[in-house]
Amino acid sequence: MTDVKAELISVGTELLLGQIVNTNAAWISEQLADKGISVYYHSVVGDNFNRLADVFREAGKRSDLVFITGGLGPTEDDLTREAFQHISGVQIEADQGTLDKMEAFFAKNNRTMTPNNRKQAQVFEGSKVLHNSVGIAPGIIVDYNKTIWVFMPGVPREMKAIMTEEVLPYLKDTLALEAVIKSRMLRFIGIGESQLEYNLRDLISNQTNPTIAPLASEGEVALRLTAKAESYQEAEQLIEQTEVKIKKQVGQYLYAYDNVHIEKKVFELLKQNHLTIASAESLTGGAFASKVVDQGGVSAIFNGAAVVYHPFSKTSALRIDDELITTYGTISKECAESMARQVKKIYQSKLGISFTGVAGPDELENQPVGTVYISICDQNDQLFTERYQFNGDRQEIRNRAVKKAFELLFYLLKK
Amino acid sequence: MTDVKAELISVGTELLLGQIVNTNAAWISEQLADKGISVYYHSVVGDNFNRLADVFREAGKRSDLVFITGGLGPTEDDLTREAFQHISGVQIEADQGTLDKMEAFFAKNNRTMTPNNRKQAQVFEGSKVLHNSVGIAPGIIVDYNKTIWVFMPGVPREMKAIMTEEVLPYLKDTLALEAVIKSRMLRFIGIGESQLEYNLRDLISNQTNPTIAPLASEGEVALRLTAKAESYQEAEQLIEQTEVKIKKQVGQYLYAYDNVHIEKKVFELLKQNHLTIASAESLTGGAFASKVVDQGGVSAIFNGAAVVYHPFSKTSALRIDDELITTYGTISKECAESMARQVKKIYQSKLGISFTGVAGPDELENQPVGTVYISICDQNDQLFTERYQFNGDRQEIRNRAVKKAFELLFYLLKK
Repeated sequence: MTDVKAELISVGTELLLGQIVNTNAAWISEQLADKGISVYYHSVVGDNFNRLADVFREAGKRSDLVFITGGLGPTEDDLTREAFQHISGVQIEADQGTLDKMEAFFAKNNRTMTPNNRKQAQVFEGSKVLHNSVGIAPGIIVDYNKTIWVFMPGVPREMKAIMTEEVLPYLKDTLALEAVIKSRMLRFIGIGESQLEYNLRDLISNQTNPTIAPLASEGEVALRLTAKAESYQEAEQLIEQTEVKIKKQVGQYLYAYDNVHIEKKVFELLKQNHLTIASAESLTGGAFASKVVDQGGVSAIFNGAAVVYHPFSKTSALRIDDELITTYGTISKECAESMARQVKKIYQSKLGISFTGVAGPDELENQPVGTVYISICDQNDQLFTERYQFNGDRQEIRNRAVKKAFELLFYLLKK
Repeated sequence: MTDVKAELISVGTELLLGQIVNTNAAWISEQLADKGISVYYHSVVGDNFNRLADVFREAGKRSDLVFITGGLGPTEDDLTREAFQHISGVQIEADQGTLDKMEAFFAKNNRTMTPNNRKQAQVFEGSKVLHNSVGIAPGIIVDYNKTIWVFMPGVPREMKAIMTEEVLPYLKDTLALEAVIKSRMLRFIGIGESQLEYNLRDLISNQTNPTIAPLASEGEVALRLTAKAESYQEAEQLIEQTEVKIKKQVGQYLYAYDNVHIEKKVFELLKQNHLTIASAESLTGGAFASKVVDQGGVSAIFNGAAVVYHPFSKTSALRIDDELITTYGTISKECAESMARQVKKIYQSKLGISFTGVAGPDELENQPVGTVYISICDQNDQLFTERYQFNGDRQEIRNRAVKKAFELLFYLLKK
């Protein structure tokens, strides 16, 4: 089967009230895109029998593959099964395997199973029951009127487990997806999205296999190359060829592939070079340190941080010269450099990095909001200091400063 | 007009590819819920003429109010206007006001306006043009076949500006929303969602005006009370009466209202009590400090932090007794208390708070992943220390520790 038309239906009044954001739809779409399955519609509908039935009917007419999440719970509000039975005539029946699993669960927890709970074991006649490895309610796949219907719980963790462990392998077999789909993400830093797209404009607009999709997030850009081919080798080769062309234009900004973010890349470079680091943070307030610690196993490279948000902590905790602060102020190259040197000394690390600046909302020491100094003191006590003027609100300025620090470290360490 | 049926259509292939999450739909839904307008459907559709036309046609049949975001840009892919013209016969025309604004913008930036750019000035015959205070492309409102159609750009910042400044005031006048809608958010900490819902189960299920909607996020629960009435006073009174009933059951966990989060509440309590704080952070790695600094103007209460992730930084930067660490280990009550005392001393604050524990992925000093000690050293050098066993991955454990610290500070300071 080629060119499968898929659509997603998310069931839940809380989505329509704006109480939760529909992250399920984005996640499922991404998984399907990776497998070369095209999604043409997302819908959200509340827990209402008639509206559910209408949306299901429409989906059955226009799609080969319909994913429905939510509305499978134990309460009276959960009407997904009933609405599907109504439009299809496919009967609802209890799944003994799930009932056994539930009974064991309740017995173990010394609780009594109520009739409500039993509802979660309901599937469709002739359906494939999908094992839920992280919860109770199973997923269900049923073929009806030339469309494959996939039902999953709305809880993201359960949906993701069922999708990964059960649905995607099933679809791979059943749809006999003839082409191999391979993706590679190229990650860039130090170049803006518009500049990257401009430099690659001919390549991006003429390229069909692999496709080149630019993805931007705060301070970074990525390109996702997705190739379709008859074999894994051929797909790999197509990606390689395009990557070579991309590197010719913007190779100097490429820092890593796939799931390796800049924080991880810097961590790896520090480790490879047997270096340790400590940070002295004023406006960032520990955000750089926290980003480093987000990764596990960083003891080898991260000695710690002094968060010296208050001016007098710069002297008390970092032992910076009072006179230096009086002469140059805390928002200065001199203060940044002293902070980097001192934190390196006190935390006994090989590198020290410092942040001082004005996150806002008000200006400070006559310097405008967005002024940020970042200084790095390296293993030879050489100082690299940069002054930036960032845009954005308080939070954005702090995030940009942290991201910029990883960029500076990357370019310093990759030499 | 009462019981307006609204629906939202988001246009954009990047949503169907899962490259971005549809936060616009949640945000618009929340705004409409606050005004008492019910949203019955969300749809996402790509930049495809026929599919757009189909979705628009269906929406026109079932809804009184249709919001369409995206597909109004300058490129050939942007087909929202054309698809609506196709299903309605309403003609597209240029808006001179927008053209003038665009010409001024391009002249100022020394750029030439291309025919493509002009497309963004296109509106519908007889439509209301909605001023975009943060971008170029205007929003559009058009009445067609008993339905109000609202078109807005997909860029969240622009959509939000147009919605707030133009659309909501227009709807208030046009739909003559007869009732006053008033919301109040009650924020709780120290009680789980299921416990809160259980304690209030009768109230929640029998209550219709105001409605009571529980909202849970990491470590906190909130209840949104929404009252509809003929007058502001009456709505206020309805909320007051319900709040009294809620407080009878769970009042001891209530910490603030509306947009005041626990971090802000603790900040206010510290300020009122003329107290300052400093943190010593091992597993949290500066995440507590960063949360404090997220808020502006915290110099008055926050002296700084020592991120002592590496064992030897506990002795070098916090000057903790080597012997204490050898005897008790770093994951211990004794170490936590020494950290709180020392950070208070070195950062010259009135309170010191410390975090030490095992964020994972591996156990540490024979203590399981999730073990966390939090210690507070108060202005009288009295120590309050708690040991927790948190669930979750590395990131969750660290977030839970930080949230718990704010909870402990809240209960300590409100006395």
